[in-house]
Amino acid sequence: MPHTAAPAIRERFAAATSLGPKAGALALGYFNRRDDLAVETKRDLHDVVSIADREVEQLIRTEIGRLFPEDGILGEEYGLEGGSSGFTWVIDPIDGTSPFVNGMPSWCVSIAVLQDGNPVIGVIFAPCFDELYTAMKGDGARLNGKPLVLDASRSVRNAVTGLGANNHVTPQVVAGIVERLLEGGGNFIRNGSGALMLAYVAAGRLVGYYEPYMHAWDCMAGFCLVAEAGGLCHPFPTQGDRLTKGAPVLAAGPGAFEDLRKIAAFEA
Amino acid sequence: MPHTAAPAIRERFAAATSLGPKAGALALGYFNRRDDLAVETKRDLHDVVSIADREVEQLIRTEIGRLFPEDGILGEEYGLEGGSSGFTWVIDPIDGTSPFVNGMPSWCVSIAVLQDGNPVIGVIFAPCFDELYTAMKGDGARLNGKPLVLDASRSVRNAVTGLGANNHVTPQVVAGIVERLLEGGGNFIRNGSGALMLAYVAAGRLVGYYEPYMHAWDCMAGFCLVAEAGGLCHPFPTQGDRLTKGAPVLAAGPGAFEDLRKIAAFEA
Repeated sequence: MPHTAAPAIRERFAAATSLGPKAGALALGYFNRRDDLAVETKRDLHDVVSIADREVEQLIRTEIGRLFPEDGILGEEYGLEGGSSGFTWVIDPIDGTSPFVNGMPSWCVSIAVLQDGNPVIGVIFAPCFDELYTAMKGDGARLNGKPLVLDASRSVRNAVTGLGANNHVTPQVVAGIVERLLEGGGNFIRNGSGALMLAYVAAGRLVGYYEPYMHAWDCMAGFCLVAEAGGLCHPFPTQGDRLTKGAPVLAAGPGAFEDLRKIAAFEA
Repeated sequence: MPHTAAPAIRERFAAATSLGPKAGALALGYFNRRDDLAVETKRDLHDVVSIADREVEQLIRTEIGRLFPEDGILGEEYGLEGGSSGFTWVIDPIDGTSPFVNGMPSWCVSIAVLQDGNPVIGVIFAPCFDELYTAMKGDGARLNGKPLVLDASRSVRNAVTGLGANNHVTPQVVAGIVERLLEGGGNFIRNGSGALMLAYVAAGRLVGYYEPYMHAWDCMAGFCLVAEAGGLCHPFPTQGDRLTKGAPVLAAGPGAFEDLRKIAAFEA
């Protein structure tokens, strides 16, 4: 029933677009006061970030529960709560906790909505830059309202690739990715937030993003953004229990996707 | 004659502190209009950045020439102009041209003053963040006026390290650095601007920065900032002709310097 599904998506898109900046403002308050909060609470900065993470996720969950009580919710902090509507919200309240805790601006709030496992809404808000990335399936991607359309002439060689890594993979694996990317004439950045780097792919600032292991809350909003901007995403498992597990994440502009698949050493 | 040298340094510090944001505003104008400028001038984005780079360096050189006609100037775009005062300005009008051209905010203006080869003033301005990093020898380092003092308890293992690389070194060398850093329990970011990452070291956002090959204009301001914040810098050759050549760059907080020297594989 696409004519009934569409308004249901639009309602959720409006909610997500409003929730991103609201959640971001709450997180930014913690970010700007993190040193004082650590002193006041006699805790370390990592505890302050954990508190902020949970507060922001609670704010988003409360609002979703109020507006769409039949939707499922998966969040990094509080896990998966099933729903009956076919829609599942997938949220990372603060993606980039390492930049956040160290006082760097490259972190964001990431909110996706899946319909039967497919991302149909992607909203990423980066509070330190006041940048709101929004995408709805079939409606395109936007940055602060301006449409984002990827340029197919951009490649691994003439643009920059984003990389991510964590201790789910060995240093040798990460070093191998770096070496193959550079050997292939590419260059990389890593700003500490996978979700924000995926948003940068949608905005054409990066030509692609690869991380060997991420969770759905890190990438689903970014995947919707990249796809709606005209890019390609390596399939990420979202069915049933798989939604809570990690998997490799690759998203890129059309001129870089195949090269990045080789650099990532994916099987054909 | 330290009692006469000091006022001479203070005058130049005042000029550098005022020049950084002025040069940054000019660069930011190009950054915000770069897509339109590329269309208007029928040039590609790299040409627009080159024009901005030269314009900004000219602005800085003109001002220095007016205020301190006997000082030397070394800039990335127009090379070395000798002086007779013992002071040499070392400037990178836009450090991070790759982020600049790709629309990412991590680029900056870097202005250093050397006295007989030693950096005595470091000013880095990051226009997209409105962040002004300033340091004067013996006077400490500041970010937007707030003193910066490094925490010796921060290490490669409990903080983040910045890495840089370019095609002066092989992909294998870069991959080796990444592998050793991760093996040592560290983590990295790379935001595309070495000067800005050095400023982040001074601000305690990164615990150290290593790049196997950089030029004086990329690192002299950052070195003054890191040293004045209480960090350590691997000696960089600045005497005579060596000033225009590249060399490895390592700067870090006191709790990370020795570990990073090993990761960089420096000889003892």
